[in-house]
Amino acid sequence: MNDPAATEPRFVLHPEHHLTSSAMLQDVVIGLSDGLTVPFALAAGLSGAVVSSGLVITAGLAEIVAGSIAMGLGGYLAGRTEVEHYQAEGARERREVREVPDVERAEVDELLAEMGLSADTRARAVAELTADPEQWVKFMMKYELGLEEPDPRQAPKSAATISLSYAAGGLIPLSAYFFTATPAQGLGWSAAITLVCLLVFGFFKSRMTGQPAVAGAIKMAVVGALAAAAAFGIARAVSR
Amino acid sequence: MNDPAATEPRFVLHPEHHLTSSAMLQDVVIGLSDGLTVPFALAAGLSGAVVSSGLVITAGLAEIVAGSIAMGLGGYLAGRTEVEHYQAEGARERREVREVPDVERAEVDELLAEMGLSADTRARAVAELTADPEQWVKFMMKYELGLEEPDPRQAPKSAATISLSYAAGGLIPLSAYFFTATPAQGLGWSAAITLVCLLVFGFFKSRMTGQPAVAGAIKMAVVGALAAAAAFGIARAVSR
Repeated sequence: MNDPAATEPRFVLHPEHHLTSSAMLQDVVIGLSDGLTVPFALAAGLSGAVVSSGLVITAGLAEIVAGSIAMGLGGYLAGRTEVEHYQAEGARERREVREVPDVERAEVDELLAEMGLSADTRARAVAELTADPEQWVKFMMKYELGLEEPDPRQAPKSAATISLSYAAGGLIPLSAYFFTATPAQGLGWSAAITLVCLLVFGFFKSRMTGQPAVAGAIKMAVVGALAAAAAFGIARAVSR
Repeated sequence: MNDPAATEPRFVLHPEHHLTSSAMLQDVVIGLSDGLTVPFALAAGLSGAVVSSGLVITAGLAEIVAGSIAMGLGGYLAGRTEVEHYQAEGARERREVREVPDVERAEVDELLAEMGLSADTRARAVAELTADPEQWVKFMMKYELGLEEPDPRQAPKSAATISLSYAAGGLIPLSAYFFTATPAQGLGWSAAITLVCLLVFGFFKSRMTGQPAVAGAIKMAVVGALAAAAAFGIARAVSR
C-alpha cells in the first residue's frame, strides 16, 4: 500500500518508449511491495492471537483476495478516469484556443517567460507555437497542464499486473502456515522467508530506480518487520 | 490500495501552490480509499468463516495497523527517495552542463524542436536558456526529466496523513462488529455503513477531480462490494 506517485520519480516528459517499457515492471513493484508486507503482517498478527493455523490461512487468503481486487479494480478505474480526464482537458483547451485565443496566447507567453526567454524571443516563439491549433493544444496540454496522453490499453494491463503481483507477494508469507502445525511455527518460517524476500526485492527495486541498493533492501525489510510487529502487538492485546 | 499515480492526474508542471494546496487532500483520498475497502472486505470475508465477532475485530485491527504502517512508512521512505533522486539528478545535470555543454545545448534544442519552434527561433532561445547555468539546469530538470523539486517536509506529512486516513477509514466498517452480537449481524451493519460511506466518499472524490460524481460514487461502492464478496467467498470455501 505504498504511494507509487511518490515511489516512482515522475519521468512525465520522457520519451514514450521509456514510460511503456518500465510500466509493467513498476506495476509488479507496486503489487509486490504491498503483497509482501500487508498479508505477512496480518498473518503474523493473528499468529499471536489464535490457536489454529487454519484461521490464519482463512484470514490471510481473505485479505489477499480483498487487497488484490481493491488494488486491481481500483487501479483499473483510476486508469480509465485518467483517460477521460485527458480527453476532457483536451476538449477544453481546444475550445479555449478557438474561443479565447488571446487569453491562451498570453498563457503560452507566460510559460515561455517562466522558462527564461526574453520578450523578443517569446514574441517569435508564441507566433510559431500558435500557428497550428492542434500543435498549440498539444503544447498547452503538455507544458501548462503537465498531461501526457495516457494509453487506453494501459489500464486493464496495469490492473491485472498489480493484482497478480499482490496475490503472488501475499502467498509467499502465507505459504509457511500451510506446511507447519501451529501458528507459532508458521510465524517463524513466514518471517524468515518473507524477510529474505523483502531484502532481495528491496535490493532490486532500488537498483531499478538507481538508488543505493543495500540501504533499499534494509528499508524494505524494516517496513515489513515493523508492520508485522505492530500487528502482532495489537492482535495479542485485543485478544486477551 | 489504489494506484494514486493513476488516480490523480499528473499536474506536474502546474504552479507550486496548486500542488501543495491539494497534496493533503490527495493523501486523505489515498488513505481513505484503501482504508474503507480492504478492512471492510477482510471483516466481511471472516464473517462468513468464523463464529466469534472477537476474531473478526482482532483480525480487522491487525490489518488496519499493518496496512497503515505499510502505507505510511512506505510512503515516507518513497518521499525521501524522491527527494534524494531529485538531488542526484540535479547534481548530474549540473555536471553535464559544466563538462559537456555542447551535448546539453543540443538537448535543449531538441526539446524546443519538439515543441514546434523553427531553427531560427530555437537558436535564439537556446542562447538565452543556457546563458545562466542555474536556469539551464532548472530547465533540463523540468522539461527534459519532467521533475519538479519535491518539498522535503512533504514526506513525513504525507506519511502521517495517509496512515491516519487509512486507520480512520478502516475503523468505520469494523466499528459495526463492536456493537453487534454475531459476525452475521456485524456484517449487515458493516456493509450498510460502509457502502453509504463509499458512495459519499466516491461522490466527493470525483467532484474534487472534476469527474462525473454519481458515476464515481457508484464505482467506488462497486469496488468495495466486489472485494468484500470475493473475500467472503474465499474465506467460506477455505474454512469448510
